[in-house]
Amino acid sequence: MQTGAPVCVGIDPVYERLPRSLRAGADSADGPDARDAADALLKFSLGVLDAVREHVPCIKIQSACFERYLWPGVEAYHKLVHEARQRGLIVIGDAKRGDIGISAAHYAAGCLADPAFADLGTMLGPDALTINAYLGPDAIKPFIDLATEQGKGLFALVRTSNPGSDTLQSAKLDDGQTVAQATARMLADLGAAPRLVGRSGYSLLGAVVGATKPDDIAALRDAMPQQILLVPGFGAQGGQAQDLKACFKPDRTGAVITASRSVIYAYEKTGGDNWQGAVESAAKQFKEQVASMLRP
Amino acid sequence: MQTGAPVCVGIDPVYERLPRSLRAGADSADGPDARDAADALLKFSLGVLDAVREHVPCIKIQSACFERYLWPGVEAYHKLVHEARQRGLIVIGDAKRGDIGISAAHYAAGCLADPAFADLGTMLGPDALTINAYLGPDAIKPFIDLATEQGKGLFALVRTSNPGSDTLQSAKLDDGQTVAQATARMLADLGAAPRLVGRSGYSLLGAVVGATKPDDIAALRDAMPQQILLVPGFGAQGGQAQDLKACFKPDRTGAVITASRSVIYAYEKTGGDNWQGAVESAAKQFKEQVASMLRP
Repeated sequence: MQTGAPVCVGIDPVYERLPRSLRAGADSADGPDARDAADALLKFSLGVLDAVREHVPCIKIQSACFERYLWPGVEAYHKLVHEARQRGLIVIGDAKRGDIGISAAHYAAGCLADPAFADLGTMLGPDALTINAYLGPDAIKPFIDLATEQGKGLFALVRTSNPGSDTLQSAKLDDGQTVAQATARMLADLGAAPRLVGRSGYSLLGAVVGATKPDDIAALRDAMPQQILLVPGFGAQGGQAQDLKACFKPDRTGAVITASRSVIYAYEKTGGDNWQGAVESAAKQFKEQVASMLRP
Repeated sequence: MQTGAPVCVGIDPVYERLPRSLRAGADSADGPDARDAADALLKFSLGVLDAVREHVPCIKIQSACFERYLWPGVEAYHKLVHEARQRGLIVIGDAKRGDIGISAAHYAAGCLADPAFADLGTMLGPDALTINAYLGPDAIKPFIDLATEQGKGLFALVRTSNPGSDTLQSAKLDDGQTVAQATARMLADLGAAPRLVGRSGYSLLGAVVGATKPDDIAALRDAMPQQILLVPGFGAQGGQAQDLKACFKPDRTGAVITASRSVIYAYEKTGGDNWQGAVESAAKQFKEQVASMLRP
């Protein structure tokens, strides 16, 4: 797929912010039923896919938004992942899972694998999954094993885009590096195993580095030469295009810039009935901002 | 409830290890269907509840084991949480969630709240949830807000019980403390807000400290005077009773010791048809080990 820029649209749908036309019938005095809300999230998300797929190669789906509606929400999430992959998009499951031993293996099976159950029908899982690295290398290994087996990828949290992430992630170690840099080093080591590194020179183990922390990006880029950086926080969270050059290598590869709310809720600013048109325009504009930043 | 010791049984059911009688009908050449497997996990877990409830006040349910079977698994998980609470047990949802902003709020709603959807029927959520603290205080706050509102609790990962947890958690900061101690300090600060501290002097924000890291426990106990420690890794993972005294304060409060596989799979060692009897004996023995360790 050639869309012109390494961009990703984050799908974080919140029921109360969906276009009114999609909520009709699901709203009641007590709020929506779980199944109706999950259906509305799925319908909206599929509409977003159709609006953005000509402009972006990749989407990231926020699991929390769906889990909020319990098992009907989880069913909608898996259906959305499958539908997005059917449409040829690269799909990142944003579930930020992390556990040890066999529990990590279960999360890998449930959140990353292509599901293989006769009763649920044939489905595709996401191409990649976000994970939490705090528990250490042996807790990441079950995810790596499944990713290697199924040709998938991982993005481990290194530097998150929230203001409070400084408390722990910016704490200084006795060697002068920050905790985020120590996490980066751990991932760089773990991801350097030859079986994980593709022809491109990048490892299947990537890293999440928030767009709102421009001062940290260059050092993290250097610490993780084989990691693709997934960079959330562009747009609504305040990340700016000019700050993002440091995410990329000199050859302009190595990062995927993500915008979520600024794209999927673009219709809140434009008004009018054509919510998909507003989402499409915002996706196109986002793609062009990143492409122009990357132009020599 | 008076059961004689601050113990918790971890329910981490793995389909392939369930008693054969519970797998009958669900096994096929291609492995079980997701719904059949989820039903078997639920049936087994309810059997464990009935076997242990006279001996332990608290259970911890591993979400990963259920998520492995997608939405049918998630439905079984929520039903199990509800049934365990109906039986008067204290229920910890072991989901280790962590995200920022509104996504954290969605996880709190989906994983900690008492579900309130007309179409799913009235349900009880867990009394407490495990969370990941790497993202920082503002990412924990949405969980705290919901826990405060609903009178529930949280256990944030500080020192995990896996061997590889040393890589990041034991890294030394420039003030001589470890990363785990910095996480502990962050939680102690965050949990000290008066609205979070109960009459007992303990905060609703607790911490997970693995039983397999006895050398670290005393310092973490000191760093978190208001945190109840949830201590997994007793039994199958190698944690020993004598090492665990340091988890408690001089008044013998402040920690909950957790055993999982050594209790719920006890029938694998004893053989015979009475799997629930084996689980009950193991729970009783576990409880007595901890009670005897705590005796003056």
